[in-house]
Amino acid sequence: MGLLVSFMTTPFAKRRRSLQKLLEDAKIDALLVTQPANWYYLTGFTGESGALLVSRKGISLVTDGRFGVQARLESPGVRVVLQKGALFTSVGEFIRANGGKRIGFDPGQLTVDQLRALRKATWGKTEWKPRAGLVETLRMRKEPAEVAQMRKAGSLASEVVQHAATLLKPGIREVEIAAEIEYQMRQRGASGPAFETIVAFGERSAFPHARPTSKRLRKNELVVLDLGAILGHYCSDITRTFYVGRVPARIRQWYKAVQEAQAAAIDAVKNGVSCGEVDGAARQVLAGYRLDHYFVHSTGHGLGLEVHEDPRVARGQQRRLEPGNVVTIEPGVYVEGVGGIRIEDDVAVHADSSEVLTRAPRDLIEL
Amino acid sequence: MGLLVSFMTTPFAKRRRSLQKLLEDAKIDALLVTQPANWYYLTGFTGESGALLVSRKGISLVTDGRFGVQARLESPGVRVVLQKGALFTSVGEFIRANGGKRIGFDPGQLTVDQLRALRKATWGKTEWKPRAGLVETLRMRKEPAEVAQMRKAGSLASEVVQHAATLLKPGIREVEIAAEIEYQMRQRGASGPAFETIVAFGERSAFPHARPTSKRLRKNELVVLDLGAILGHYCSDITRTFYVGRVPARIRQWYKAVQEAQAAAIDAVKNGVSCGEVDGAARQVLAGYRLDHYFVHSTGHGLGLEVHEDPRVARGQQRRLEPGNVVTIEPGVYVEGVGGIRIEDDVAVHADSSEVLTRAPRDLIEL
Repeated sequence: MGLLVSFMTTPFAKRRRSLQKLLEDAKIDALLVTQPANWYYLTGFTGESGALLVSRKGISLVTDGRFGVQARLESPGVRVVLQKGALFTSVGEFIRANGGKRIGFDPGQLTVDQLRALRKATWGKTEWKPRAGLVETLRMRKEPAEVAQMRKAGSLASEVVQHAATLLKPGIREVEIAAEIEYQMRQRGASGPAFETIVAFGERSAFPHARPTSKRLRKNELVVLDLGAILGHYCSDITRTFYVGRVPARIRQWYKAVQEAQAAAIDAVKNGVSCGEVDGAARQVLAGYRLDHYFVHSTGHGLGLEVHEDPRVARGQQRRLEPGNVVTIEPGVYVEGVGGIRIEDDVAVHADSSEVLTRAPRDLIEL
Repeated sequence: MGLLVSFMTTPFAKRRRSLQKLLEDAKIDALLVTQPANWYYLTGFTGESGALLVSRKGISLVTDGRFGVQARLESPGVRVVLQKGALFTSVGEFIRANGGKRIGFDPGQLTVDQLRALRKATWGKTEWKPRAGLVETLRMRKEPAEVAQMRKAGSLASEVVQHAATLLKPGIREVEIAAEIEYQMRQRGASGPAFETIVAFGERSAFPHARPTSKRLRKNELVVLDLGAILGHYCSDITRTFYVGRVPARIRQWYKAVQEAQAAAIDAVKNGVSCGEVDGAARQVLAGYRLDHYFVHSTGHGLGLEVHEDPRVARGQQRRLEPGNVVTIEPGVYVEGVGGIRIEDDVAVHADSSEVLTRAPRDLIEL
């Protein structure tokens, strides 16, 4: 009995029950879940191919022979069905055989071909209902254990960015720093980077999404390091900006503006505050410095099993923050031909407080 | 004039002209290209978001403000259009404004939502025609410069797998080997791994797609290392299997069977031979050892800008190999509870010969 009780209360089983409760309001008999982070969230399955069907009556995972043993081990309480032939044809045949009149799918995650295969295999007897974001809505409200895991992932990234700063010497290449960063993550237990590590020297730091190149660091250049680690399936995301040499007054001023903008936005992160207000807090500070037109992206994004998830922290976003939300706060200024500055941390929302999960000094460091 | 001539003959411009010649036969005025490897192939653009429209008259790339400067620098000869609002709505509005009656799209790459946004923004005046694989067909026939780049990527991966073998000592963890492998790739100039590096010890080697864990290596275990590097945008992919300790007779026999199966399939790779025949060559050898039921996947796949692309080297594939194709040849046997063996190399097809791009010893090494 002890075993049964512990099995019934896995976080995966609880989340499935939460999702099952949403099906009636969504007017569907079952939801088709085709996105890996979503199926992991609901089952613990880490295979690379599959489709999960969550109905009021039960949970079935269709996957191929490569992942059958793994699915049974990782996903107790889930019926594992091995596909014969193409995945979506098999899913459709399974639905046809098991009766499902109204099935929801996420139209932002299913391709035109996949939907066509499903319709064909269900012989036109199933109504396919677009239902976006049901699992994502659950994922936004992290459980305490998820936030605890993200705290660890945040600490890990904070250690790595500080280690990487010690390597910033003239002559070193961007790709070398990126390699060292990802190596250090793994040495500290990460399964890998949460996204392609950004290492940008000098003028290249003006590209918010610069890919590391073989460019060598020179004196009197800005350095932007933007990195994140996946630890126990959860992502972190941190950015720090450095200067090699004596910082010119203009860049010192820009840095001060970004630092104040970030502090204002972090202060604004609170249960009940809208995401648009948080974005506005950063933007207002930059406007005070007449730098807001150099801030070419949004202030932040949700973070969790994926590095970009809901809620978005952007202009005009009405959604209000809730306990369990985790968002990045990452304002920046980017001046073509000169360089860029960005400071980013991860912040968790609690009922009566908020908590910064990444911990590395934010003051401008001259190297 | 010299500049103009050299600009007119970039490989990207040549490929665009090849694609433009296919539009008439495909009965479309333009093709919408939404897959990053495809747009890189046609333009050189390396940004993370965008959509390319290739018409008989011209080439337009719709992207957002983060990538505008980059797109203009990377893609001479391409009109760069900055989106206002959502990407696919902007693409639709651009098409509506510029007149395009019949536009092709890949139904395996466009989501249901994306197609809906396009239809809405074109006010029902555009016919949307499913046209799969037009760019992928061009990409299959690699140019000599592409094969040369893949030769370098193959050498790099071959060096790294041999280096990693020297670290296989009892007590080391799978994740440590994976970290070292990816670090060594980057130190040798790779922009990163082509896929999540597989390091599987002991029984875990029986999972063809094992993710590295904190499991420690013990004596008398099999080790499968499957890795690939991205070098100058092109992928490599190599697998080697090792044994720590004295190899038992049964495993020696399995290894011999896989090695012979791989050699037979590599021998079969020739201009004009069907992919199904190549797959069959490996399968036949394993059947001779009564091990074919332990070979649970296909023999190989195309390789290039992506780690999995056309042609597929699988049972029943009728497509005939052509000069410029590059495929992996990677038979294996997987025995649950014992372990797995896989040997993989990359092979380029030339007019009168074939060429193995990866070079590391294939004999069973006892460590």
